[in-house]
Amino acid sequence: MVDIIEKKRDGEILSKEEISFFIEQYTNGSIPDYQVSALLMAIYFEGMTAEEQGFLTMAMVESGDQIDLSPIEGIKVDKHSTGGVGDTTTLILAPLVAACGVPVAKMSGRGLGHTGGTLDKLEAIEGFHIELTQEQFVRQVNDLKLAVIGQSGNLTPADKKLYALRDVTSTVDSIPLIASSIMSKKIAAGADAIVLDVKTGDGAFMKSIKDAEALAKSMVAIGQEVGRNTMAVISDMSQPLGFAIGNALEVKEAIETLKGEGPEDLTELCLVLGSKMIVAGGKAETLEEARAQLQQVIQDGSALRLFGEMVEVQGGNREMIENPSLLPAAKYQIEVQAQEDGYITQMEADEIGIAAMLLGAGRATKEDKIDLAVGIMLKKKIGDRVMKGEPLAVIHSNTENVDKSKELIMKHIHISPEKVEKPSLIHEMITE
Amino acid sequence: MVDIIEKKRDGEILSKEEISFFIEQYTNGSIPDYQVSALLMAIYFEGMTAEEQGFLTMAMVESGDQIDLSPIEGIKVDKHSTGGVGDTTTLILAPLVAACGVPVAKMSGRGLGHTGGTLDKLEAIEGFHIELTQEQFVRQVNDLKLAVIGQSGNLTPADKKLYALRDVTSTVDSIPLIASSIMSKKIAAGADAIVLDVKTGDGAFMKSIKDAEALAKSMVAIGQEVGRNTMAVISDMSQPLGFAIGNALEVKEAIETLKGEGPEDLTELCLVLGSKMIVAGGKAETLEEARAQLQQVIQDGSALRLFGEMVEVQGGNREMIENPSLLPAAKYQIEVQAQEDGYITQMEADEIGIAAMLLGAGRATKEDKIDLAVGIMLKKKIGDRVMKGEPLAVIHSNTENVDKSKELIMKHIHISPEKVEKPSLIHEMITE
Repeated sequence: MVDIIEKKRDGEILSKEEISFFIEQYTNGSIPDYQVSALLMAIYFEGMTAEEQGFLTMAMVESGDQIDLSPIEGIKVDKHSTGGVGDTTTLILAPLVAACGVPVAKMSGRGLGHTGGTLDKLEAIEGFHIELTQEQFVRQVNDLKLAVIGQSGNLTPADKKLYALRDVTSTVDSIPLIASSIMSKKIAAGADAIVLDVKTGDGAFMKSIKDAEALAKSMVAIGQEVGRNTMAVISDMSQPLGFAIGNALEVKEAIETLKGEGPEDLTELCLVLGSKMIVAGGKAETLEEARAQLQQVIQDGSALRLFGEMVEVQGGNREMIENPSLLPAAKYQIEVQAQEDGYITQMEADEIGIAAMLLGAGRATKEDKIDLAVGIMLKKKIGDRVMKGEPLAVIHSNTENVDKSKELIMKHIHISPEKVEKPSLIHEMITE
Repeated sequence: MVDIIEKKRDGEILSKEEISFFIEQYTNGSIPDYQVSALLMAIYFEGMTAEEQGFLTMAMVESGDQIDLSPIEGIKVDKHSTGGVGDTTTLILAPLVAACGVPVAKMSGRGLGHTGGTLDKLEAIEGFHIELTQEQFVRQVNDLKLAVIGQSGNLTPADKKLYALRDVTSTVDSIPLIASSIMSKKIAAGADAIVLDVKTGDGAFMKSIKDAEALAKSMVAIGQEVGRNTMAVISDMSQPLGFAIGNALEVKEAIETLKGEGPEDLTELCLVLGSKMIVAGGKAETLEEARAQLQQVIQDGSALRLFGEMVEVQGGNREMIENPSLLPAAKYQIEVQAQEDGYITQMEADEIGIAAMLLGAGRATKEDKIDLAVGIMLKKKIGDRVMKGEPLAVIHSNTENVDKSKELIMKHIHISPEKVEKPSLIHEMITE
């Protein structure tokens, strides 16, 4: 191990055997944390080639269970987003793409953050359960083309152990380590092809387009190394996506989007990512063709119908999909008003996300309980004109005192007399 | 701690408080090894300013006991060598400088390597004991100006703990860490002023002059930061120093040098380092003046006499100094002969050192026992003419089978038909 650290420290390239050795021995406890943290810091400074990242990814995949989706017919395409504020795309994309014939066997998580993860959001639907056996899962996807469940099994334990160490040794922000971590989880979950939504801007982990691009390129290169068709979209997270931030609120917004009545940016991002998934899944030749299919399943209602069917099969109350006013709703709706006339020039996504978390929409620690009903509905987006006294957002809360969240929202939605352009939603597509 | 690692990772400068916090908390076990190894690797890549190194040095000094030499009159000047093969300078310099009136309160070690440390060498003198109480030590230096003892007390425990971690995490080769480690030990041992002999070349830790220079500059800068007058000499270790490699053999060579009959290079290095020590000790204004004093105490026999007095006071058999043939001698003396006519062009110091260690002159591990009598006496140095069959070296051994050592010596003393110049002994002097 000392030689491996020294090699990387001196900028040399590690071999497949060296990377496998380190991951295996670290996972089984034979190599101490203090050697691994030194290696991680050397990787932080010296980087890794695409080949090394491929070896690292596969070593982490092989460190634990791997989901076998081969009994499911067709190309299994998974989507991953690097996370942002108000990102409801999974709830929309899953039925949308499945309705076009691409099997969606989705394992989702809860996670920490401004709102819950996809699983939390789905649990806003009464009765919906996220635990299926492997057989039920496969059968449901073969029958319906669609299932969304919680992660089961011991996937990528090496990644979990490494992540915990990176978190306390300032080695989280390393592109090769982030890229291998994400890719290993998708591959262990059985994906044949992967579509990545790398967010950039204020509300994203990657603040700059340059970093987002580097991460996207790393992941696409890993996909090539390990034989998984992988493509990435770099999308804007300088303001929250859509209008809804909060679990039940985002489910409502997803339903509206599936009806063709969703926010413009959220709809467009789903069409862009969905087109890539359909092409990757072999159901269309070109992105234009794929986009037309997606628009078709929105217009004819089949995507929304499929969402309802999945909810029903997984024990959920389908009525809530047909009539979203049945979804959990907060007691109070409190407007946040503009203090002046002007144009919205900036909406700091992360700060507005924190405002939602303070209401109870997200978890700061694993033990926190989420209030599925609460959140924030934005009324304006960047570039919009606003008059003094007009609502900027509506806070959905179960307590009357929302001063802190209100203050955060007011402080971080900037209004200026001069108009600015809407930020472009898709910065770049990366396919190799 | 995570913030401290991140700061250094991002190339920022750590404050005195941050460095003290990390050293204190690491020494008392509150910060885990895995965070410290990540920080060390970040320091490896990002370096440290002179001020940071000064803070680190003093934090390590303060982590344990500190020797108080204030009851000794005069400026206490210590010398440190970064280590090489056949380096007998301490045995010569200590009496030489003390005879000129600079108090020498020297704490020495044993250490691993080709031969023993200064303490082992002194133990070749029958009866010599290296354990004195603090009071005895101070009294002896005030009376005689000279004492050489073993290290006592718990000096720089932070440095010991850090060094053990660096050793297994490939973070040994970091100039700021090496420099702070050396300086902390000298300061904890009570030095007012420090003269450093930084070796460079094949047989040294610093293989290139550039690295040796960087280390020397770092240590001199630390000295300035922490208010200890510090100067450095960069000296050659491309071949062994002097002719003797081995404990009793080096004692003999030291005695010859104190008589003015020692090898040219060893004598010159002692005069150079000694002059610096005398100037640092305030006993001469210029190096020339100091050098004349040193030559005087060699010529008039007072340096050798003082060495004998120290040996006597510390319980050793003074007769051995007057008649070095009484020192431990090996059973066999085996010549290593030149295989061809020509000039010595290269003598790989580290390989010849290993040949001595194989005879039993040094320790590979702490548990190894040293044979004080054995070693190698070189008969030639780089630039010398040699005839086929002439001795290159004489092996002093207590076993007849010395094939491995012989082979190493023959292989690593290179002979060529073309004459080369003797390497220059002093590459550079660094005073700021």
